[in-house]
Amino acid sequence: MSSNPASFKPIVTTDRLEAFSDGVFAIAITLLVFGIKVPVVSGVDVSAELRHQLLALWPSYLSFGVSFTIISIFWIGHHHMFRLISRSNRTLLWLNNVFLMCVSFIPFPASLISLYGRERISMILYCGTTIITGIALYMIWAYASTGGRLLYAGIPKRVIQVAGWRILGGTFFYGVALGLAFVSLTASRILLVFIPLFYLLPSSIDPHIEE
Amino acid sequence: MSSNPASFKPIVTTDRLEAFSDGVFAIAITLLVFGIKVPVVSGVDVSAELRHQLLALWPSYLSFGVSFTIISIFWIGHHHMFRLISRSNRTLLWLNNVFLMCVSFIPFPASLISLYGRERISMILYCGTTIITGIALYMIWAYASTGGRLLYAGIPKRVIQVAGWRILGGTFFYGVALGLAFVSLTASRILLVFIPLFYLLPSSIDPHIEE
Amino acid sequence: MSSNPASFKPIVTTDRLEAFSDGVFAIAITLLVFGIKVPVVSGVDVSAELRHQLLALWPSYLSFGVSFTIISIFWIGHHHMFRLISRSNRTLLWLNNVFLMCVSFIPFPASLISLYGRERISMILYCGTTIITGIALYMIWAYASTGGRLLYAGIPKRVIQVAGWRILGGTFFYGVALGLAFVSLTASRILLVFIPLFYLLPSSIDPHIEE
Amino acid sequence: MSSNPASFKPIVTTDRLEAFSDGVFAIAITLLVFGIKVPVVSGVDVSAELRHQLLALWPSYLSFGVSFTIISIFWIGHHHMFRLISRSNRTLLWLNNVFLMCVSFIPFPASLISLYGRERISMILYCGTTIITGIALYMIWAYASTGGRLLYAGIPKRVIQVAGWRILGGTFFYGVALGLAFVSLTASRILLVFIPLFYLLPSSIDPHIEE
Repeated sequence: MSSNPASFKPIVTTDRLEAFSDGVFAIAITLLVFGIKVPVVSGVDVSAELRHQLLALWPSYLSFGVSFTIISIFWIGHHHMFRLISRSNRTLLWLNNVFLMCVSFIPFPASLISLYGRERISMILYCGTTIITGIALYMIWAYASTGGRLLYAGIPKRVIQVAGWRILGGTFFYGVALGLAFVSLTASRILLVFIPLFYLLPSSIDPHIEE
Repeated sequence: MSSNPASFKPIVTTDRLEAFSDGVFAIAITLLVFGIKVPVVSGVDVSAELRHQLLALWPSYLSFGVSFTIISIFWIGHHHMFRLISRSNRTLLWLNNVFLMCVSFIPFPASLISLYGRERISMILYCGTTIITGIALYMIWAYASTGGRLLYAGIPKRVIQVAGWRILGGTFFYGVALGLAFVSLTASRILLVFIPLFYLLPSSIDPHIEE
Repeated sequence: MSSNPASFKPIVTTDRLEAFSDGVFAIAITLLVFGIKVPVVSGVDVSAELRHQLLALWPSYLSFGVSFTIISIFWIGHHHMFRLISRSNRTLLWLNNVFLMCVSFIPFPASLISLYGRERISMILYCGTTIITGIALYMIWAYASTGGRLLYAGIPKRVIQVAGWRILGGTFFYGVALGLAFVSLTASRILLVFIPLFYLLPSSIDPHIEE
Repeated sequence: MSSNPASFKPIVTTDRLEAFSDGVFAIAITLLVFGIKVPVVSGVDVSAELRHQLLALWPSYLSFGVSFTIISIFWIGHHHMFRLISRSNRTLLWLNNVFLMCVSFIPFPASLISLYGRERISMILYCGTTIITGIALYMIWAYASTGGRLLYAGIPKRVIQVAGWRILGGTFFYGVALGLAFVSLTASRILLVFIPLFYLLPSSIDPHIEE
């Protein structure tokens, strides 16, 4: 035992939590492509039929793109958040796992919307999953940042506030898309495609946390 | 060869063992969602039929939630355990791979219970897999901690003991759920949903290993 | 809060970006094998029929090999590129995610070409995906390297140029394969098998970035 | 650019190569469970029929166990090998990707043997894949260790030799299993189950590379 390389350090880093999360994100996002079913074609004119069926898959391509973008947004949010979090504990691990459960569920409503995009129930489940995922991400932030519980020292208060607002802001827009689904499915769908633009805009906190 | 950056260090760290384990955990947990089959609907009233079928999938949703939670528990246990383990060797790699074999098997009884939840054999296989996985995790701990073989120096004896008890405790409860399955499937199912609460409670060793 | 282990460092490293990318690459490349469907055999002479069907799968084996090689090329390119990039920001994360979306899409045209290899549309989609993926990788490099924006200091200008040319060079060849598909599918297929050789050749910049 | 955190270091570490390999290994090994098909049961006595079908799946369970063990052996071999390798280059990346292509192919013969275990062709493909994978692993080692090309300094010559022999040794046994398949499928199968025991034995080099 004297040859042990080092003594135990009771600080729980977030290294494995981040590695495990990256794994779940990577799998959920890569498996989305399996929601696009390769057409089964037979008949006299295979070429024309295959071309026709590949074109008819456009809702699947759109669902792939939108779902990939939504999971990307959550990954980037998680990435930015954990740059500010310095350590972990049992509660944070569980909150993070609840969030990952939501992320790993996304492929289900994604393939639902790809197959039954005209049904209101598909849109409700899709937006609902996104909203619950957003709330779960916010819970992680609320727990870690309250009183600076698990954060690095020296982060400006404004950065902590804006980070929370950004998560809630996106979640609010998905709530609007959910509400719109009861009025007009088309309007709801269009909003869903445009929400990511909100996250592409640079944030007022970027200068504080980058470079 | 003189340009080699460093000389060989014969210490086997647990870095890759943990990275590989996180990968297996992440995949097993993320693939659970594929146990929820997207309904195939046709007929006159697609909307009503789809809503009906999505509701009828509740055993699949429940199985997803319970299995995600069980794999989460094993991951958190593995995470806590390897914070205390400082190095690896051939035996530990094999014990860890046996444990991972059990973890990666979980999706099979999980989809079994999701499809045939009313059958006793499904519950037996599900609880049995969980018990064997728990025993495999305990074997890792027993091997690494006996005489402090692979642990960091300076870990309180009580922490080592309680860590072992927590693993065996959960395994015991899954044993009870297995026994109950022969008496009442409903009672067994209810216990299965509540066992995770045992792990949500903070442990008496948390103050020693966190912060 | 006084027990926080360290103060916040506003440098965004590329660690998690690389880990997440490796996850997506690993999954996309490993799932290619599922494009090879295990034959379903029945009848009087199962042995002969199975042997026959396994031989008839040769386009699937070829597609597996070619697609594995193409994703390998992109991974090695990404790997080499990020050795030169020292830090990240929101724009780089998004450009990287667009690239990963293309990578994760590759299994779809790969199974298409494995099932309908004689159809022109399959070859067009396959080459098209590869070209767009190459352009997305080039976008990352163009953004990160312009004015040395996110690069390490002290990288010879020639290395930066050649790195860009290598990406565009491969993309150009896939463009030729796409064009050939309209003239002769066989010629296009042969080119597709030989393009990777271009990347196996050592690069003139290797001495600058290796060892 | 003056704010760049560090100058470029031309040493290519094996970090990302190992992370990517762990990802491929983790996915290939975790997906083996999907070779065990959940039975589809209907009829008057669902319970008896389900029990019967689950028992009849024993070749799938065996194939899962054996394949998991074989991939474990390759992972442990890769893990041990890269502890001795200090840096990477383009050739090593390609040799490693060829090896990973073999690893990611294993689930195909594994499900073949699980479905058609009595067919000689299944056993030939299974053993053949294992042999080629072993040779690919040996190629990595031969390239990295010749003249100590990519190894750490100070590794005893005997360790380098024995590491190579262990890989070739296992590959030789799989060759015997392949040969046996032409004489007696049963004998070949039994050998396949026992080969892993060879790797469970501690190696004469373990004292040199552990602890």
